Amino acid sequence: MKETAQLAENVIARCKALAAFSEDKGGLRRTFLSPPMRDVHRELANWLDPLGATTRVDAVGNFRAVYRAKEEGASKLLIGSHLDTVPNAGAYDGLLGVVLGIALLEALDGERLPYAIEIAGFSEEEGVRFGTPFIGSRALVGRIDDDLLALRDARGISVRQAIEEFGLNPSEIPSARLQDDILGYLEFHIEQGPVLESLGLPLAAVEAIAGQSRLEFTFLGQANHAGTTPMNLRHDAMAGAAEWITAVEHTAKETTGLVATVGSVKTIPGATNVIAGEATLTLDVRHPDNSVRHRTVKELQRRAEEISQRRGLSVRSKENMNQKAVAMDSFLTGEADEAIRKAGCKPHRMVSGAGHDAMIMAEKVPATMIFLRTPGGISHDPTEAVAAEDVAKAIECGLHLLQQLAEAPTFQTRTLRA
Amino acid sequence: MKETAQLAENVIARCKALAAFSEDKGGLRRTFLSPPMRDVHRELANWLDPLGATTRVDAVGNFRAVYRAKEEGASKLLIGSHLDTVPNAGAYDGLLGVVLGIALLEALDGERLPYAIEIAGFSEEEGVRFGTPFIGSRALVGRIDDDLLALRDARGISVRQAIEEFGLNPSEIPSARLQDDILGYLEFHIEQGPVLESLGLPLAAVEAIAGQSRLEFTFLGQANHAGTTPMNLRHDAMAGAAEWITAVEHTAKETTGLVATVGSVKTIPGATNVIAGEATLTLDVRHPDNSVRHRTVKELQRRAEEISQRRGLSVRSKENMNQKAVAMDSFLTGEADEAIRKAGCKPHRMVSGAGHDAMIMAEKVPATMIFLRTPGGISHDPTEAVAAEDVAKAIECGLHLLQQLAEAPTFQTRTLRA
Repeated sequence: MKETAQLAENVIARCKALAAFSEDKGGLRRTFLSPPMRDVHRELANWLDPLGATTRVDAVGNFRAVYRAKEEGASKLLIGSHLDTVPNAGAYDGLLGVVLGIALLEALDGERLPYAIEIAGFSEEEGVRFGTPFIGSRALVGRIDDDLLALRDARGISVRQAIEEFGLNPSEIPSARLQDDILGYLEFHIEQGPVLESLGLPLAAVEAIAGQSRLEFTFLGQANHAGTTPMNLRHDAMAGAAEWITAVEHTAKETTGLVATVGSVKTIPGATNVIAGEATLTLDVRHPDNSVRHRTVKELQRRAEEISQRRGLSVRSKENMNQKAVAMDSFLTGEADEAIRKAGCKPHRMVSGAGHDAMIMAEKVPATMIFLRTPGGISHDPTEAVAAEDVAKAIECGLHLLQQLAEAPTFQTRTLRA
Repeated sequence: MKETAQLAENVIARCKALAAFSEDKGGLRRTFLSPPMRDVHRELANWLDPLGATTRVDAVGNFRAVYRAKEEGASKLLIGSHLDTVPNAGAYDGLLGVVLGIALLEALDGERLPYAIEIAGFSEEEGVRFGTPFIGSRALVGRIDDDLLALRDARGISVRQAIEEFGLNPSEIPSARLQDDILGYLEFHIEQGPVLESLGLPLAAVEAIAGQSRLEFTFLGQANHAGTTPMNLRHDAMAGAAEWITAVEHTAKETTGLVATVGSVKTIPGATNVIAGEATLTLDVRHPDNSVRHRTVKELQRRAEEISQRRGLSVRSKENMNQKAVAMDSFLTGEADEAIRKAGCKPHRMVSGAGHDAMIMAEKVPATMIFLRTPGGISHDPTEAVAAEDVAKAIECGLHLLQQLAEAPTFQTRTLRA
């Protein structure tokens, strides 16, 4: 087995090298089926070929490589993450999970396990090009339909055309689907948040991906002259909105595991000397328990109405997203805990506040994720980073996990969910 | 003496007629020295000629008409307001004060007073064309300098050029200045606020024009992922800003006569799923007592710093305006009270939260204002209105005031301030 410290340095160097393949000159942007995606596929294949893995690009542009099992006909463990990026991205979001998967195969140094390993580099997770995320992983669970293929990007090109222009065949999308020989799905990913750093831990097992509600609230009052309207005769939409933002923060702090954010505020007319007649705010609420999330959204709507009534305002809200929480597989997550412990780290369970491919894969196969500490919690930014020691711990943890699964006979008899 | 009810109807009809002279097709916009200003000058002259008034347009485009006194060489009382408008304006802001002045001359029905009356229709008060207000009244108090003449409008035309293009001569600006024969300045103006309506009163005497502070506050935190950043690890600029907006409102409500407004709020990056790293807010504070205003601004800056410190944010503020309060003349304002009472109305004193030409005139001559109730408090809007009965009361009040001043020997010996 190769030295994990060396492998970890190599993982980081490879992520940095792949960050050079960008649509933009000044920074990293690599969207779904964009030309630099070919360069990434080529590099990944160059690293996998010497390991005897068979590689292909499926009909939605996912990179897929199979490292065969000890015996033919064995089931497969999927290890994956995404290859696309946001604009002005860092080098590790998504990419790290794929490159780290390859490092695990290298660490095996030719050893064959009782199950095959498939590395999946998803073509689309961020939703940048077509405004809808997870196109890559959706192909594996059979959720690419004609509506999705008809979506158009900013240049008017449809998903179907984009697939064809990349030299792929949309009629072959069904063959991208998972067969019934999949044991489970494992995704390494940077945390993209400050929790592990604040706890002084390199790794965490993810037990659930939080559900999300996104809403838009509009408080309506009466625009008026800031000089001639006494305080007691005002219907100031922004003053009401401010009281509500404070209530949102208070409610979130009182509810364990809940995050709630008002990220965007707009005032109309938005002049220094005019009382705001209208304030439009966004609300983002996340929690691993859907009932807690729904109850919170309802409570915040009630608070908005109560505040508005008291101030002579009116308020309306519109739901733009209502995405259920997704539990990770309890067996796999328990094994991840154990592997983290064996790697010499204190096990820690987390809920992912962000969506990930694992959320889609969990619809069909047992799935879990392992988070790596993210310096400063910074992601989606060129300064996004990961420590080589943490990557080394992740590789150690991954190897322990592969070994544990090899020794778990019930794991090897699992099959694809209905 | 003519019937005031008929005169009032006529005042409203004339204001509506003048509103047809606009730079825009769809609504009323009549900025400084714009072509429709000539039409207004012509109409005003047509109404004043039969009264034996001598009319002229001074070198900055102010319309000026003198109705002579009983005896030659007598001093003058100025009655005026502005002829320019904001975009999408109503018919009464400014115009009413000029047209009502003419109605007072008509009501005199040829009677001559111990003082002359000069009607002043100021060419510029709103600051729309050159971004600086009160150009018209500033000419009367000798505050037009080369810097002002060099200002350029959106089309690159300077004030000096605009004067020339209107057929006037900038070198004659000094002759627009007040002579030392001015007794005082009287301005009728719609309140542009809801106070008189809420009190059920048609008229009020204005005892001061509030001082104004305008500032911009920027709260700086840390932009971060709305899903992956727990509540206790956030530095949410908008949450801090919201707490401060609530403090601004609370402080204003606790301070008699103070108004404070946060009219514009902007968040950066301003996305639903990103905690705001930056929130920029405007603050507008007004009070008739400068020391109260300054103390309040300081207190609100202190509160912003306290909130920021507690939340791990930073805050900076920038002052964009610091305009002193201006007291109206106590003798003239007392006479206005008395005239309001004689017109059968309950006297009421107000502080103007908005700036007016009277503020500029008060630099040189005793000045006062009389406000007319504004339905719904609505102004700077095509629905801006005034009730005919209120205009009739204003005319009655004006006539009583003219009579009182005619009978006040000390008033007639007042002269221009140094």
